[in-house]
Amino acid sequence: MAGTVFFSVSVSLDGYLAPDSPDELMGRQWMQLQQWVFRQKHFRENLKLGTGGEEGRDNEIVRDTFERTGASVMGRRMFDAGEEMWPADPPFHTPVFVVTHSPREPWVRDGGTTFFFVTDGVESAVAQARAAAGPRDVRVAGGADVIVQALNAGLVDEFHLAVSPVFFGTGVRLFDRIDAAGVGVEQIGVEPSPHTTHLRYAVRRG
Amino acid sequence: MAGTVFFSVSVSLDGYLAPDSPDELMGRQWMQLQQWVFRQKHFRENLKLGTGGEEGRDNEIVRDTFERTGASVMGRRMFDAGEEMWPADPPFHTPVFVVTHSPREPWVRDGGTTFFFVTDGVESAVAQARAAAGPRDVRVAGGADVIVQALNAGLVDEFHLAVSPVFFGTGVRLFDRIDAAGVGVEQIGVEPSPHTTHLRYAVRRG
Repeated sequence: MAGTVFFSVSVSLDGYLAPDSPDELMGRQWMQLQQWVFRQKHFRENLKLGTGGEEGRDNEIVRDTFERTGASVMGRRMFDAGEEMWPADPPFHTPVFVVTHSPREPWVRDGGTTFFFVTDGVESAVAQARAAAGPRDVRVAGGADVIVQALNAGLVDEFHLAVSPVFFGTGVRLFDRIDAAGVGVEQIGVEPSPHTTHLRYAVRRG
Repeated sequence: MAGTVFFSVSVSLDGYLAPDSPDELMGRQWMQLQQWVFRQKHFRENLKLGTGGEEGRDNEIVRDTFERTGASVMGRRMFDAGEEMWPADPPFHTPVFVVTHSPREPWVRDGGTTFFFVTDGVESAVAQARAAAGPRDVRVAGGADVIVQALNAGLVDEFHLAVSPVFFGTGVRLFDRIDAAGVGVEQIGVEPSPHTTHLRYAVRRG
């Protein structure tokens, strides 16, 4: 379905999306969570980390997720962390709509990535991303706040969780503020891979 | 492997094992979490709920989990809730070791279930259960406290999570007190079913 709004994230077995502190972003547990991505050929090429990388089913999943995405929606904290880390040619190569309280002019980067700053909420950001994505899909990139806001507002059509075999014990939980009574889900796919387990769900409109 | 110590529980997509209050144990979300069990022929027969029930792969999983179990370990809150609810012939049909601070004489029930009350901790309860189980396995039945105590103490060999497509939003989280740095896991199986997704893990000794 063209124009699908989705998210696709890695979560620990105890439901964490990220560590509490950006300092821990290179820690052992974060690497275990994300290794199914970091090891893939498409991920390495897209960030210009050099050649090599795995080329199996996980690589297809990383590449398909990239290719279906015509625009992304992102929270301000994810943007702030990324602004420090991404290269001049960030790995999006599409418009990215950042949900923020601080107005800012669009920030044009190399390779087709432009960050637009949206100050009137996640619903507006998703609508602008849909318009920008054309026939492709809209990815709610993260963090947890924006993903759960979009889910609770009925803006998400489907999602992909890569449940990795690691415990965090602390950090940012993905579903902490979910409207449990309002968001219904349906299993649409399960696929094991060497480093993670891919679970796919469709969101049922209430 | 004979004498394996395992647990097997249903968890919501946001990581909850049970609602906060026993009053909610018959609520809509709890039923959605457990429907893959409640609908099965073996479950119905074992609790003498009458004939009928599904006979597919989920029924095999429910039956195999029952048949491999030679003894169970249980927390006091789970026992207290069950003491009110179980029939005179409880669904265990084996020895059950209840971890508690209150000494009590063994409680012999119909159909082969005897509850033994263990006041010197989960390690002792697991050791007594292993001795009682003979060639069969030991199931850490729950709740979350006893499961995580056993995991953190290195007493669990493997576990099965049935991740059901429902959000709780609140309740008792399975892995809240996990020793994230001390407990390593390895994926050993993934299997979708109509009402849940079965994930199996082996625990790596540190």
